[in-house]
Amino acid sequence: MKTLRIAIAGLGTVGVGTYKILNKKSELLQKRSGVELTVTAVSARSKKDRGIDLSNVTWMDNAVDLASLDNVDIVLELIGGEAGIAYDLCKQALLNGKHVVTANKALIAHHGIELARIAEEQNVTLAFEAAVAGGIPILKGLKEGLSANSFHNITGILNGTCNYILTEMEKTGNDFPEILTEAKDKGYAEADPTFDIEGIDAAHKLAIITSIAYGTKVNFNDLYVEGITGITIDDIKYAEKLGFKIKLLGLCQKDENGILQRVHPCLVSKSHPISKVDGVFNAVVAQCDEAGKSVYEGRGAGEKPTASSVVADILDIANNRASLPFNQHVAALDEPNLVSMDERVGEYYMRIQVSDKPGVLAKVTTIFSDHNISLRSVIQEEALSDNTAQLILITHNALESELKTALEKINSLDTVLAETYIIRIENL
Amino acid sequence: MKTLRIAIAGLGTVGVGTYKILNKKSELLQKRSGVELTVTAVSARSKKDRGIDLSNVTWMDNAVDLASLDNVDIVLELIGGEAGIAYDLCKQALLNGKHVVTANKALIAHHGIELARIAEEQNVTLAFEAAVAGGIPILKGLKEGLSANSFHNITGILNGTCNYILTEMEKTGNDFPEILTEAKDKGYAEADPTFDIEGIDAAHKLAIITSIAYGTKVNFNDLYVEGITGITIDDIKYAEKLGFKIKLLGLCQKDENGILQRVHPCLVSKSHPISKVDGVFNAVVAQCDEAGKSVYEGRGAGEKPTASSVVADILDIANNRASLPFNQHVAALDEPNLVSMDERVGEYYMRIQVSDKPGVLAKVTTIFSDHNISLRSVIQEEALSDNTAQLILITHNALESELKTALEKINSLDTVLAETYIIRIENL
Repeated sequence: MKTLRIAIAGLGTVGVGTYKILNKKSELLQKRSGVELTVTAVSARSKKDRGIDLSNVTWMDNAVDLASLDNVDIVLELIGGEAGIAYDLCKQALLNGKHVVTANKALIAHHGIELARIAEEQNVTLAFEAAVAGGIPILKGLKEGLSANSFHNITGILNGTCNYILTEMEKTGNDFPEILTEAKDKGYAEADPTFDIEGIDAAHKLAIITSIAYGTKVNFNDLYVEGITGITIDDIKYAEKLGFKIKLLGLCQKDENGILQRVHPCLVSKSHPISKVDGVFNAVVAQCDEAGKSVYEGRGAGEKPTASSVVADILDIANNRASLPFNQHVAALDEPNLVSMDERVGEYYMRIQVSDKPGVLAKVTTIFSDHNISLRSVIQEEALSDNTAQLILITHNALESELKTALEKINSLDTVLAETYIIRIENL
Repeated sequence: MKTLRIAIAGLGTVGVGTYKILNKKSELLQKRSGVELTVTAVSARSKKDRGIDLSNVTWMDNAVDLASLDNVDIVLELIGGEAGIAYDLCKQALLNGKHVVTANKALIAHHGIELARIAEEQNVTLAFEAAVAGGIPILKGLKEGLSANSFHNITGILNGTCNYILTEMEKTGNDFPEILTEAKDKGYAEADPTFDIEGIDAAHKLAIITSIAYGTKVNFNDLYVEGITGITIDDIKYAEKLGFKIKLLGLCQKDENGILQRVHPCLVSKSHPISKVDGVFNAVVAQCDEAGKSVYEGRGAGEKPTASSVVADILDIANNRASLPFNQHVAALDEPNLVSMDERVGEYYMRIQVSDKPGVLAKVTTIFSDHNISLRSVIQEEALSDNTAQLILITHNALESELKTALEKINSLDTVLAETYIIRIENL
């Protein structure tokens, strides 16, 4: 029987999870591939006991050296980080004619095209199913399952930490900082949660999805990204009252003007399936021309779901059925014609903090009216003891650049006490 | 550029839909495969105008003759039927060394293993993504995306006609026969809807799913099948009152006793995502050991979604990445160790039609008690003008064989006027 020899770089949760599956399921995996899969080398920061037997495995202190071992056919890069060792290892492994499987969305969002080109030249596989939506085989679904389709748009809950925080705010009525602390305690948020709560992690994943959907080169830098740190418990409550839930979504869409890709909090109707995806779950909704709407939902992170996707990539290699990283030859990928967020047309939720004085609402609504922005609903809450009040406004469809101009004027009013917080409404 | 020459057998909705995609999207499909796809031959019942240009295409009156044409590499079998021409064509095409793509669940449920063996011997592909859940790439998801997993259970809404009828009963309050007539008028049910409403179509699909999930030979004949024709509008209303929806589900599960595969109406909690899949949509929920729970939802039928999956199979062949029909070599597939429905343990909803006489409820509940079946809730409606009444009972967990024995006694009571109708409750 043919053997594929595997090196694991990084023995964190995903690395250990992958090792365990490969070991305990060797018989099943052989049945499903006709190949014996064996871990021959590893690298990690320390040799601490992780409950796995590494006695017959080559240990490398420097992960990059895994790329040069003769007894390795596939390198699993499970270290993380957009550059540094992860990048050096993947590049060198591909250059040395080894297959690379990675769960590293930052790396692929920044260097995926360069690495894909090397993989093509070397006639080896670069695969990263685990980088997007953990245990959900969404890249395979988009690339292969829906290969007959052009995509109108793709919308996803791509970050479990943010979705957990928003769900808990909703359930408990507690505000963002408290829930974030709890999420850290429970292991649902990292010690430094910046990448998650600022939307960057979701944006890495969305940039990869956009490229695959539209046959364009990954462009992470021009992606509009906004996290969830500005959301207050009041927003959650007003949204609920108005028939919405707040979700951090990644969205890409294509029309005659080009491609718009963005990550930001959204108000979505309580009746839409995506609003019911709670906690650490991820979901992706694809709207396409032949298959229509399809929804994919599952665990977006964690040891076993992520390892499940890493091993699926290995089995694709073992079965000689791996698709191209971005579904087309790199030479065939177009430069994306990106549309700016200023060109978004849609409805907006706004929370405006004002002094409780006569005429404030009139001033605000006049400015909107001057910019031809019409309002669908207005909630003016009773003033607080400090004589401030919150105005909650919902617009009809408006052009984002026009809204921004109006908001600049509104924010500069004496009676407006803080920068107006907006959340876009998405009619999915 | 390499060319793949395609023959289409059957120019109904799916055949025409596939032809259209192959023609209008030739450039996109070439980008995604590096292969030129060209339809070289067709066969259909009549030469009537279908809005597609067949002037450069070989026409065969007998579809089976497509299997012997030199200018054909892939045969698309889009005729249907578990035997006859569809079977003869697929078998002959495979024997002649041609790839076969089919949307025919009946054929695969009955003859899939035989055909897969021939495909293996001839080193060609047999693919049938379109046979299960139309536009949702669920077979690819189970075989490839979740290849690292063992499956605890898989549950699906696999028949759009039944789901449409149940949804409409719920929405309109009209009874089954009326809604079925409407469904026929709207094209959501066929003139002879037996296969759909009796659960046979869903059972064909479930038999295929079971085989792929558990690495066993397809066994359609020993699958428990019950359709939706016994469901009344009263059942829908009682279910609603009790916090449930009624769905026709296909379920397969494996435990230490073996595999249980079954299609029947189920009560599912209104809060479970599958209860929100309405109308003609299909959905599949997979519970597995590594990736956990994942949900796949989309259109289960129709010209474009089904053609989308047919073309996806063609692109897998064009890219040399098609997996084995049942994910393992036929020789490695086990005979399924099937568990009988009698061994199901679960809760049951029962509608018992009784004479409105004193002591009926006591008699009924005594029989359950004698069989150690305890009741969770009892609804006794006021008697109708004809002095009959309906008892609605919900059991705690009970063994199906025990329940059946108790029901035989209950059904033979003088005061019980019709056979008791049961619906199984599934705690998904």
